[in-house]
Amino acid sequence: MSPLTELPDDIARDLREFTIEVPSWAYGNSGTRFKVFGTPGTPRDPFEKIADAAQTHAMTGSSPRVSLHHPWDRVEDTAALRSYAEDLGVQLGMINSNTFQDDEYKYGSLTHSDPAVRRRAIDHHLECLAVMREAGSHELKIWLADGTNYAGQDSIRARQDHLANSLAEIYAGLQEGERIVLEYKFFEPAFYHTDVPDWGTSLLHCLALGEQAMVVLDTGHHAPGTNIEFIVAQLLRQGRLGAFDFNSRNYADDDLIVGAADPFQLFRILFEIVQQDAHRPASGVNFMLDQCHNLESKIQGQIRSVLNVQETLAKALLVDREALADAQARYDVLEANAILMDAFWTDVRPALAAFREEQGLPADPFGAFRASGYEEKVAAERVGGNQMGWGA
Amino acid sequence: MSPLTELPDDIARDLREFTIEVPSWAYGNSGTRFKVFGTPGTPRDPFEKIADAAQTHAMTGSSPRVSLHHPWDRVEDTAALRSYAEDLGVQLGMINSNTFQDDEYKYGSLTHSDPAVRRRAIDHHLECLAVMREAGSHELKIWLADGTNYAGQDSIRARQDHLANSLAEIYAGLQEGERIVLEYKFFEPAFYHTDVPDWGTSLLHCLALGEQAMVVLDTGHHAPGTNIEFIVAQLLRQGRLGAFDFNSRNYADDDLIVGAADPFQLFRILFEIVQQDAHRPASGVNFMLDQCHNLESKIQGQIRSVLNVQETLAKALLVDREALADAQARYDVLEANAILMDAFWTDVRPALAAFREEQGLPADPFGAFRASGYEEKVAAERVGGNQMGWGA
Amino acid sequence: MSPLTELPDDIARDLREFTIEVPSWAYGNSGTRFKVFGTPGTPRDPFEKIADAAQTHAMTGSSPRVSLHHPWDRVEDTAALRSYAEDLGVQLGMINSNTFQDDEYKYGSLTHSDPAVRRRAIDHHLECLAVMREAGSHELKIWLADGTNYAGQDSIRARQDHLANSLAEIYAGLQEGERIVLEYKFFEPAFYHTDVPDWGTSLLHCLALGEQAMVVLDTGHHAPGTNIEFIVAQLLRQGRLGAFDFNSRNYADDDLIVGAADPFQLFRILFEIVQQDAHRPASGVNFMLDQCHNLESKIQGQIRSVLNVQETLAKALLVDREALADAQARYDVLEANAILMDAFWTDVRPALAAFREEQGLPADPFGAFRASGYEEKVAAERVGGNQMGWGA
Amino acid sequence: MSPLTELPDDIARDLREFTIEVPSWAYGNSGTRFKVFGTPGTPRDPFEKIADAAQTHAMTGSSPRVSLHHPWDRVEDTAALRSYAEDLGVQLGMINSNTFQDDEYKYGSLTHSDPAVRRRAIDHHLECLAVMREAGSHELKIWLADGTNYAGQDSIRARQDHLANSLAEIYAGLQEGERIVLEYKFFEPAFYHTDVPDWGTSLLHCLALGEQAMVVLDTGHHAPGTNIEFIVAQLLRQGRLGAFDFNSRNYADDDLIVGAADPFQLFRILFEIVQQDAHRPASGVNFMLDQCHNLESKIQGQIRSVLNVQETLAKALLVDREALADAQARYDVLEANAILMDAFWTDVRPALAAFREEQGLPADPFGAFRASGYEEKVAAERVGGNQMGWGA
Repeated sequence: MSPLTELPDDIARDLREFTIEVPSWAYGNSGTRFKVFGTPGTPRDPFEKIADAAQTHAMTGSSPRVSLHHPWDRVEDTAALRSYAEDLGVQLGMINSNTFQDDEYKYGSLTHSDPAVRRRAIDHHLECLAVMREAGSHELKIWLADGTNYAGQDSIRARQDHLANSLAEIYAGLQEGERIVLEYKFFEPAFYHTDVPDWGTSLLHCLALGEQAMVVLDTGHHAPGTNIEFIVAQLLRQGRLGAFDFNSRNYADDDLIVGAADPFQLFRILFEIVQQDAHRPASGVNFMLDQCHNLESKIQGQIRSVLNVQETLAKALLVDREALADAQARYDVLEANAILMDAFWTDVRPALAAFREEQGLPADPFGAFRASGYEEKVAAERVGGNQMGWGA
Repeated sequence: MSPLTELPDDIARDLREFTIEVPSWAYGNSGTRFKVFGTPGTPRDPFEKIADAAQTHAMTGSSPRVSLHHPWDRVEDTAALRSYAEDLGVQLGMINSNTFQDDEYKYGSLTHSDPAVRRRAIDHHLECLAVMREAGSHELKIWLADGTNYAGQDSIRARQDHLANSLAEIYAGLQEGERIVLEYKFFEPAFYHTDVPDWGTSLLHCLALGEQAMVVLDTGHHAPGTNIEFIVAQLLRQGRLGAFDFNSRNYADDDLIVGAADPFQLFRILFEIVQQDAHRPASGVNFMLDQCHNLESKIQGQIRSVLNVQETLAKALLVDREALADAQARYDVLEANAILMDAFWTDVRPALAAFREEQGLPADPFGAFRASGYEEKVAAERVGGNQMGWGA
Repeated sequence: MSPLTELPDDIARDLREFTIEVPSWAYGNSGTRFKVFGTPGTPRDPFEKIADAAQTHAMTGSSPRVSLHHPWDRVEDTAALRSYAEDLGVQLGMINSNTFQDDEYKYGSLTHSDPAVRRRAIDHHLECLAVMREAGSHELKIWLADGTNYAGQDSIRARQDHLANSLAEIYAGLQEGERIVLEYKFFEPAFYHTDVPDWGTSLLHCLALGEQAMVVLDTGHHAPGTNIEFIVAQLLRQGRLGAFDFNSRNYADDDLIVGAADPFQLFRILFEIVQQDAHRPASGVNFMLDQCHNLESKIQGQIRSVLNVQETLAKALLVDREALADAQARYDVLEANAILMDAFWTDVRPALAAFREEQGLPADPFGAFRASGYEEKVAAERVGGNQMGWGA
Repeated sequence: MSPLTELPDDIARDLREFTIEVPSWAYGNSGTRFKVFGTPGTPRDPFEKIADAAQTHAMTGSSPRVSLHHPWDRVEDTAALRSYAEDLGVQLGMINSNTFQDDEYKYGSLTHSDPAVRRRAIDHHLECLAVMREAGSHELKIWLADGTNYAGQDSIRARQDHLANSLAEIYAGLQEGERIVLEYKFFEPAFYHTDVPDWGTSLLHCLALGEQAMVVLDTGHHAPGTNIEFIVAQLLRQGRLGAFDFNSRNYADDDLIVGAADPFQLFRILFEIVQQDAHRPASGVNFMLDQCHNLESKIQGQIRSVLNVQETLAKALLVDREALADAQARYDVLEANAILMDAFWTDVRPALAAFREEQGLPADPFGAFRASGYEEKVAAERVGGNQMGWGA
């Protein structure tokens, strides 16, 4: 309970190695079905998104990769985008496919009953694999908007079979060292059933595909009350936790800043992670953000999310696991819980500030970015053109 | 349990008098934050919406009013729109205000901390009252997107005070015989708190305003598991149930066809209504639809919703209330429930078909509309121009 | 839409073959943590429970098996109980184990960190297998109350490993033709995490065990909003749906009468079943009830639940699947949904009454039982002794 | 962000004045419908409960009152119990009525359709008022288990009317300076509808009764996702927040240790409180605990809950409200949120330890109690007799 002013060496090492991948689309406009609010300085092309994402990394030192969304981030020359990113100190990361914005996909994509639509959707994913290679990445993320709005609209079972076949064709396109990660989502935009609603469904498909298929856990994609850390433990136990999409939610898929709605949940999730050493690079788990900024400053929002993950990871690493195991072995419920909470309530911010300064980073990345003048600069420069958002 | 081939006289009378108001916006395009799918023949101006809404009434005989949304349905000459509607056999109904699509309202409207923004929002509502009078209507519906996304973003309490003051200014603009109805919503587009999240809040504001302020109950705006019929009973007991926005939901505010997700819930709600004779015109409750058609045919969807309300109301009216009261008085739980279910399971469709034919309406309004060729006709005619949707 | 007065032959055949297993404990007292209300005539030993269960079958002709709960239904001579049941026209069914009422299981049973407690729990299950054989049954149902109330209380991961090992020992005790079914539950009595919270976890353990392990789906054991028919489809696709525990819920594991809370959900579940012919005996799915009667008459409640399943199954079988497939193939969302609803709204009660009479059963089993005087008779006879409930 | 080693004077003053009332029943056995686990040393009469509760106060200095439950805590001589408490340094607090454990209340109490049952229930409450006076208390808490399990079981509306009349009779029994507080609960033990399900219903009854009727907010009694701090703000705005029942929940009314499930929620609730100075004695809000200990040590659990409330209150008081108001006024969403979080993440434990020592209390009340030997002592002494629990 004494103030933590310096990180223990092993925790410092883990935090130096730990990275968070940021989503390109978080730097563009986003919103709700009611309204998308634009803001001055919003990127007008993928290069500007990368520039903004590089700011997040420059401040935090922890977010060296940027996920791309295809086709939102399609450029004529992916290699040029890659060089541009590398010049700014970041790398291109996971490729996200998109089968939810074409009219053809109104009733499904990989699950559609029409073979021609499935073909189109499969080909899109194969194209994504090509982009992935050009980007120097090795992961393709598949999230499907597929589902139905009304009972009877389509056959739940037949769609599962179509999905399995479509995924198999995509999987066959993988090369060694590459992988696909399959995301699940409880609802939205489908309101009666979704074709991959839960971790069980995602995992079953991955198991059928092979070892290069893994599950993505988006923290906002569960039914109310779901114990997410249990799912983390279960997927790690199966060796199939491929990636996180971190964000937070109070109601639905609210896509709020990570840790904003329930910081203790984030802590419990990360504690499940560190208990299996899954935070370390060797685990192969890709820790990504997936959030939308409706009201708040975009780059600041990303920095806040990165910091929240980093600080919470530090707390999770601080848990006295030996003492915890001992209390658990004695069935001392309150003591065991208290050991966990002791780490949660420890204020890691001073030690993290020192840790950052040692690495030549701002002690307070959030404040440093606000003071940097970057936002004012791009707001002045980025005049004209179309601000990027979902779909552009 | 014998098949019902003819409606009892009193039920037939009630159904003849019972009307459902349809929303103009249901005839335009709508969707999710991911995609809005357009369809051929979608109206390009409010007149075309009215024409489509008139089809719903022509087929069902039960939906003689059309709610307007201001400014989506703003026309130069509201009187002309009104005549056009009347020529097609329908009337203009409730006016819906809109303070969620202007950049000024990013952080709130009637609840905003900036008096200038509140002024603007109040003036918008006063303008709506003017439109209302031109439309020959006497009701203004207020649904607010106001709320916050993050704890600390704003003062919950101060916003309540602003809301009370703003509403008082609007209320002061009412003339005799006019009223405002205030809608509540659990979440969306705000994801941390909404300023009118529940019936209690809406009712408190109405009580503070006066007798011309009533609560609107949108069936999709509650927390998971909420017993909506209880709220109906409570609002009727307070004499403050002004209107329904009927739709259905499985998860959030899914805005699906009425009765599609849980037809038994619709029955329970309407049974609460008929127990207080609130389905009869004298009650002053306005039964409206509020739904979005993402995937299905729009006019057909409205017809289906109207029919679902009508059929379910017939079932609710069929409950043997004397027998029910008797079973309740004997604490015969299973018998009481069985009496309710007996009405629910009665197939009222043949009797309703006969009832419609007696009134010169199609026995099967849904089939009749599909066979009418109207959809093909407008798809051919309505070429060019911009299809209307949310925001246009 | 014409009234259905007679069941089509194939549906009549299916209903004749379709059976529902009733739980012995539904005939004893049950309640909430606040109060258990006793009623006159409640069984005082397993024989009296069987006698009451036989009444359910005598009235409905559809519930020829009775699930036993060990040790609640422990008797000195299981063979005698079996003969008694057979004399009354019913059979002993699935055995339910119990590891939630001994002080040793306070912190878990099959998942406990203490090998001695796990040993005890495993041995209990092996004993259940012995009882199962004496009862002439071949199925053992495992529902675990195991879980924790506080984060940190125990290791989620270690408990999964213990569970896998414990189950393997039990599984090793199975003979050919026997099987275990593993139930999952979202929460209660554990309030932070449960060790088998969802179908995915249950299925993973079953897959690891082998083909004689199947999943049990209790309709009340899911998070709010869960699409249960999707899970049914998924488990059937995996060939691992072993059994249902039917009941209904509005909030938690309310254990209400089947179909009482959401009859349309029951219909959708059963339609998923009939689409795979899983309602037929060859499927091996055991359709069981699991409910508690807090307020209502117990035998009447069971009869009502059996009838609700039977009537809803008839509706599901009435769906015009050819027309449905055709509408689905045309992406005619509203028509597809309407075809489903047409079956749902068909009043099958007259046809079922005729169907029952053909088999020499009461046309109205619920009314017939009430009129039979059985309840009055046992209330008069069963005086003295201890009424059975949970735990006795 | 510098470590807080000493509490600012005004915060220290507020914490010195702030008190938490503990429930007598938390010191007895409790559990779920599946099992109640007893523990050595559990009180066997109300005096022993008081003795245990006094330990909580002795360690924390913050819990000088003990709520009683009538009739669980009925003693022949309430005055003797009161003296006993006062000798141990605590006072008797709120009286909790009980109308959920008698057979007569199976179908309701204050809402029952039978006037004789209502009479009985009203008289019970009048008796509670008498006990209250003997106990030197001035508050009566009413929580009703009333509700129904099935649609149609009873008239929702009629029950509201009965409730209003019954409450009016009880209210008429109040003397000056006394009050009743009316609790609401979303569900359980009723599973279809409860008669006081939400704050709106409770408030309406209180408004109808008069100024001596207030609402109790139990933090575990809401639908999933409910924003509780909004309700706090709303009830304070109406001047009708009478008391809290603090506990925490993940799923239903789990009755876990305060702050265990979602410590950030507790912080937000308390921040809403301190913004209106409602934590200060003059507000009249009674901050009580209401939790059940199924697995953990009872006195330790109460101490932990008291400490969690106290620590979280300190954090809420640390919020820089001037800076917050300034950030809000600039619509700086992220800065406003950051100001709130800064207080949340501040480790107040060292300063609170110092604060306690200044008052002659143990720096670590939890550890001090564990080390005190009290539990071992009472376990050795309290042999024989019946341990108290719910109902005894």
